[in-house]
Amino acid sequence: MKLLEERILKEGRVRPGNILKVDSFLNHQLDICLLDELGAEFFAHFKDCGITKIVTIESSGIAIACMAARHFHVPVVFAKKSKSKNLDGDLYRAVITSYTHGGDYTAVLEQRFLNESDNILILDDFLATGSAQRGLLSIAQQAGAKVAGIGIAVEKGFQGGGDELRSEGYDVYSLALIDHMTDDSVTFR
Amino acid sequence: MKLLEERILKEGRVRPGNILKVDSFLNHQLDICLLDELGAEFFAHFKDCGITKIVTIESSGIAIACMAARHFHVPVVFAKKSKSKNLDGDLYRAVITSYTHGGDYTAVLEQRFLNESDNILILDDFLATGSAQRGLLSIAQQAGAKVAGIGIAVEKGFQGGGDELRSEGYDVYSLALIDHMTDDSVTFR
Repeated sequence: MKLLEERILKEGRVRPGNILKVDSFLNHQLDICLLDELGAEFFAHFKDCGITKIVTIESSGIAIACMAARHFHVPVVFAKKSKSKNLDGDLYRAVITSYTHGGDYTAVLEQRFLNESDNILILDDFLATGSAQRGLLSIAQQAGAKVAGIGIAVEKGFQGGGDELRSEGYDVYSLALIDHMTDDSVTFR
Repeated sequence: MKLLEERILKEGRVRPGNILKVDSFLNHQLDICLLDELGAEFFAHFKDCGITKIVTIESSGIAIACMAARHFHVPVVFAKKSKSKNLDGDLYRAVITSYTHGGDYTAVLEQRFLNESDNILILDDFLATGSAQRGLLSIAQQAGAKVAGIGIAVEKGFQGGGDELRSEGYDVYSLALIDHMTDDSVTFR
């Protein structure tokens, strides 16, 4: 998606450890107009799939999921990263290795919000090794929900997670797919 | 706001410790149509204030902030709860006591996303003791930003945080203001 690629080239900054900072528009400060366009693009791709819910994970996925859900007219459910006093139902659980934060955490989602009648679209801001997406796929499997596809704003293709998921048959639709990154350049596939 | 009050009466559940669960539509599963109506209501109240940015805190505030920002046509910035590899700029910091999670945490916001030219609207899902809102007010003060007001979906009035902020002159606009809660009843002001 040209609009997103251009924004990454203009405002993205590469940091040591294959970190791409896009926090001026995607995951700290949020450009709502841009996110709305990303949502429209996800809708254009997945609109005929019969999506019943959009599933994401806190925190960075929430904004993208909400702006996309507006186009699909379906609810969002986001997996949570910790067990707070507010979670008291039966939970689906998945262990996820965080690339940006380091270490593992358990993502949880209340069972009453996802079941075998659902056909979900998984949305997130980044896909690198694919650990977060696999956590959400595991939650979908526990729920017996179908997965219509996975929509990603920025895929770091050189980390392989997206192509592995595609090779397993998932429709992984990334709006910006980065093949190569150096300190001062970003190359899209 | 009638629409939100009715939804709370219909789907909200009171848990021990003054916890009100509204996770079927507000902060775990998200009813995007409802959130859009809340956003429109915040806009109706604050539209003439010259808001430049909406500021919230992860994670539950993000959805409400995004859906409101669509009406204001301004960016959202959300304070983050932990220092990840993705935060490398100069940071504003505020210590917040979490009512739902228990314990203190430090909220951070990159300095380049908020400054003295900003006139912000603080939005969040809940207001109880007001600790999260005071953290965001502290961050605004550090930035030299003006605060046009504070918009809240659900205020637990009996915990006092909202009225304290009002007595200090803040325009605190809560869409559902709960005066009293028991295991099987919720009374609005």
